[in-house]
Amino acid sequence: MASQPYERKHKVTVIGSGNWGSAIAKIVAENAAAHNNIFQEEVQMWVYEEKVEVPKDSKHFDPADTLCQGPHNLTEIINHYHENIKYLPGIGLPKNLHANPSLEDAVRDATILIFNVPHQFIIRICDQLKGKILPFARGISCIKGVDVNEQGVSLFSETIGKKLGIYCGALSGANIATEVAKELWSETSIAYHPPPLDSKAPSPSASTTEIVHFEHKDTSGQLADVKLQALPTQYPPVDHETWKALFHRPYFHVRVVDDVAGVSLGGALKNVIALAAGWVEGLGWGDNAKAAVMRVGLLEMVKFGDKFFSATINPRTFLQESAGVADLITSCNGGRNYRCAKLSVERGQSIEEVERTELNGQKLQGTSTAEEVNRYLKKQGLEDEFPLFTAVYRILEGKMRPEEIPNQIEDIPERAGSKL
Amino acid sequence: MASQPYERKHKVTVIGSGNWGSAIAKIVAENAAAHNNIFQEEVQMWVYEEKVEVPKDSKHFDPADTLCQGPHNLTEIINHYHENIKYLPGIGLPKNLHANPSLEDAVRDATILIFNVPHQFIIRICDQLKGKILPFARGISCIKGVDVNEQGVSLFSETIGKKLGIYCGALSGANIATEVAKELWSETSIAYHPPPLDSKAPSPSASTTEIVHFEHKDTSGQLADVKLQALPTQYPPVDHETWKALFHRPYFHVRVVDDVAGVSLGGALKNVIALAAGWVEGLGWGDNAKAAVMRVGLLEMVKFGDKFFSATINPRTFLQESAGVADLITSCNGGRNYRCAKLSVERGQSIEEVERTELNGQKLQGTSTAEEVNRYLKKQGLEDEFPLFTAVYRILEGKMRPEEIPNQIEDIPERAGSKL
Repeated sequence: MASQPYERKHKVTVIGSGNWGSAIAKIVAENAAAHNNIFQEEVQMWVYEEKVEVPKDSKHFDPADTLCQGPHNLTEIINHYHENIKYLPGIGLPKNLHANPSLEDAVRDATILIFNVPHQFIIRICDQLKGKILPFARGISCIKGVDVNEQGVSLFSETIGKKLGIYCGALSGANIATEVAKELWSETSIAYHPPPLDSKAPSPSASTTEIVHFEHKDTSGQLADVKLQALPTQYPPVDHETWKALFHRPYFHVRVVDDVAGVSLGGALKNVIALAAGWVEGLGWGDNAKAAVMRVGLLEMVKFGDKFFSATINPRTFLQESAGVADLITSCNGGRNYRCAKLSVERGQSIEEVERTELNGQKLQGTSTAEEVNRYLKKQGLEDEFPLFTAVYRILEGKMRPEEIPNQIEDIPERAGSKL
Repeated sequence: MASQPYERKHKVTVIGSGNWGSAIAKIVAENAAAHNNIFQEEVQMWVYEEKVEVPKDSKHFDPADTLCQGPHNLTEIINHYHENIKYLPGIGLPKNLHANPSLEDAVRDATILIFNVPHQFIIRICDQLKGKILPFARGISCIKGVDVNEQGVSLFSETIGKKLGIYCGALSGANIATEVAKELWSETSIAYHPPPLDSKAPSPSASTTEIVHFEHKDTSGQLADVKLQALPTQYPPVDHETWKALFHRPYFHVRVVDDVAGVSLGGALKNVIALAAGWVEGLGWGDNAKAAVMRVGLLEMVKFGDKFFSATINPRTFLQESAGVADLITSCNGGRNYRCAKLSVERGQSIEEVERTELNGQKLQGTSTAEEVNRYLKKQGLEDEFPLFTAVYRILEGKMRPEEIPNQIEDIPERAGSKL
C-alpha cells in the first residue's frame, strides 16, 4: 500500500474530545504523522466549545500568561498548550492535532471520520453532519455499547452509517482511557466489513458524486437498501491495513476483524456483568466468586449475540478479541460499573446514590444497558434463559439481593454457549 | 437414584490433608452426611502424620489441655478439635470426618477415592496403595496441573488410574482453597468419563474380582489396554449425579463434564499465564495490559489442548467451565504465581528470591510448568506458535525482560484459537 503513490491523502477528523476522544485523537494524530504517505499530517478534532480555566495545579499555569487569567475557550487552550486540560489533564497531545470548535469546518473534505462522543449526542451530531461530509467518507465509531430497545438491538456504527449514508465500522477493547493516554500497553479490536461494492458500477472520481447502490445485510439480518459511494481512486484504499496504520501504536496493539456486531456488543454487555462482579466483591466473597460471575456472564454474552445477531455475528469474537473477554476482564477489575456496584454493597447505598457521590454528574452505562436488555428479553419471553442479566436487572430494581446471585444463576441451562 | 435402595453405601476416603485437601474433605464429609442414603456418613481423611503444637493464638489453645502441651500427632489434634490447625487453621471440620495416619487403613473398603496431595508425592502414594484398594473403586484427582515432559503430556488422573487399575476423573476450578473453606461462593468443574464397560461381561458381585477388559482411548490418542472392574450392583452407580451429590454445596457449585484433559490442562497452564500477568502488573502497566496477557494466554491454552489432546479434548471447556477461563481469571487476580511475579518486578528480585521470602519453603507451580511446557514445545519445534508461553520461559531464564512481552506476543498468528 505504502509503495503505491496516490494523488491524494486521507484527511482524518476526530469527532469528540472527552477523555476517550482525546486519547484516541492523540493516537490517530501520532499515526497520521508517522504514515504521512497515506494521511494528511494535520488531524482535526471537533471540540464542543466551552469556557475553561487553567487550574492552578496544572504544569501550564503561569499567572503572567493571559490564557491563565480567567476562563478561555477550550479549543484555544488545547491548541496553545497541546493538552486537553479539562478532560485529559497531564497528557501531552501531538502538535499536528488541531482542536476545532466548528463541526462543519472540522469535517470538511475529511475522508476518514472517527466518532467518539457520548452516545446520547450521536443522533444530533449526525443530523448536523448531514450534507456536510464527503459522500464517500468512511467512519469508525469508538462509542461503547449498543442501542437496545423493545424494537431490537442497533449498533451505533449502523446508526451513524444509515444517518450519513456512509459505511462505519467500530473500535472497542480493553481500553481504560487514562491508561491508553499514558501509553501503558493495551490491545484493541477494530471491526470493519463494508459490503462489496458493485464492481460494474463506475468508480467515481473525487469530483463526482455518483452513487453506487448495493444490498446491505444489516445486523438484524434484514436486507436494507443502503447507498454507498465507492472511494475515488485518487485515494489509497481504506481497508484493514489502513485502519491498522491509523490506530496501531507500540503501546496500542490493534487487531482488525470483520465482526462489527460482536465488537460492539462486547463493549455494551460487559458493563452489565461488571455490576454483578462489583456486588459480589462488595459482599467480600473474593476472587472465586467474581470469576464465577464473569464466566456465566461471558456465556450469556455469547448467547445474546447468537440469539439476536445470528446472521452476522462471530461468537469467537467474545472469546478471542480484546473487545470480548479482555474488555470484560478489565471492566470487572477496575471499571466504573464494577467500582460503583462494589461501593453500593459496602456502603449499603443504592447505586444511584453512589453514582451521585462518585461520578460527578456522569451516569453509569451498565445500569441503563441492564434495563434495556431486560426490556428486550422480557418482550421476547427470554428472561429465564439469561439468569445473570435478569438477576442484575432485578437487583437494580430492588427486587432481588446480590446474595441471591448464586442461586439465580445455578440453574443456567448447561452449555449455554453451545454455539461456540 | 436416591429413591432406589441399594444394599451397600459408598465409603469415601480423601487422600491428603493440606490446605486444599482439608477444604475438599470438609465438603465431601458435609455431603456424605447430607446424602447418607448413598454414602457412609464417616469419611476417612488420610493425613501424613507429623508432630504439631497448638499455637497460642488458636481458639482451641488452653494451657490446661494436655493436647496443648508440647507437640502431638496432627491426626489426634484434628480428631479432637475438628480443625486442621496446621494447614487450614480457623476452619471447623465436620465431626464425621476422621483423620487417619494409616494410608492402608484409610482406604480399606473405600469405593470412592479422592486424591489431593502435592503432585510430587502421587507416584509414591500410588505405589503404597497398590493391592490395598478395592479393585472396582472410582477416583477423582484434585491435583492441579499435568505432568508435561519431553515424552508428552500426562494427566495426573490418568497416571493414578493406570497405576491402580481404576478409573479416575479430575476436579479443578476457580478455587482458592481458603475462600472455599470459608464457604465463600465459588464454582468448580468435575470431569468424569469412564470408558464404556463391555455390557456382555458379567457384572461382578462385591465378593468377586472378575476383571472386565476394554479398550481405552487415552488422552494422547493411543489405544491402551486398561483393565477396569465394573462396580458391583449392590452399590449405587457412580455417575455424574453421584459426583454432584458428593461435591456440590450451596457455596460450592459443581458442573460435571466429560472432558478430563481440558479440565486438567486448564489448571496447569493458567499458572504460566499468571506469571506474565504478575510481571505486567508489577511494571505498573494497569488493567488493560493484564487483560491483554490473559486474552493471549487463553488462546494459547486452547491451542495447546488442540495440538496435543485433539483426540479427546473439548476446546469449549477452556471457555465455558470454571476450570478454564474462570480459574485463569482467579489465578491472574490473586493467585500465588501472579503475586510472586508481581513482587519480583516491583522489588527487582528473581522469582526464586521472592519464592524463598514469601512462600515459606513452598515452590511455585507456574515456573516448573513453564519450563516443562517449553521443553516439550522446543522438542516439537513449536516455540514460535506459543509466543506467550515462550516469553514466560525466556523471562524465567533471564533471556528476556517482562517489558518485551508486548512485542513478543504481537506476532501471534491471527485467530490462534481457530479450532474453537
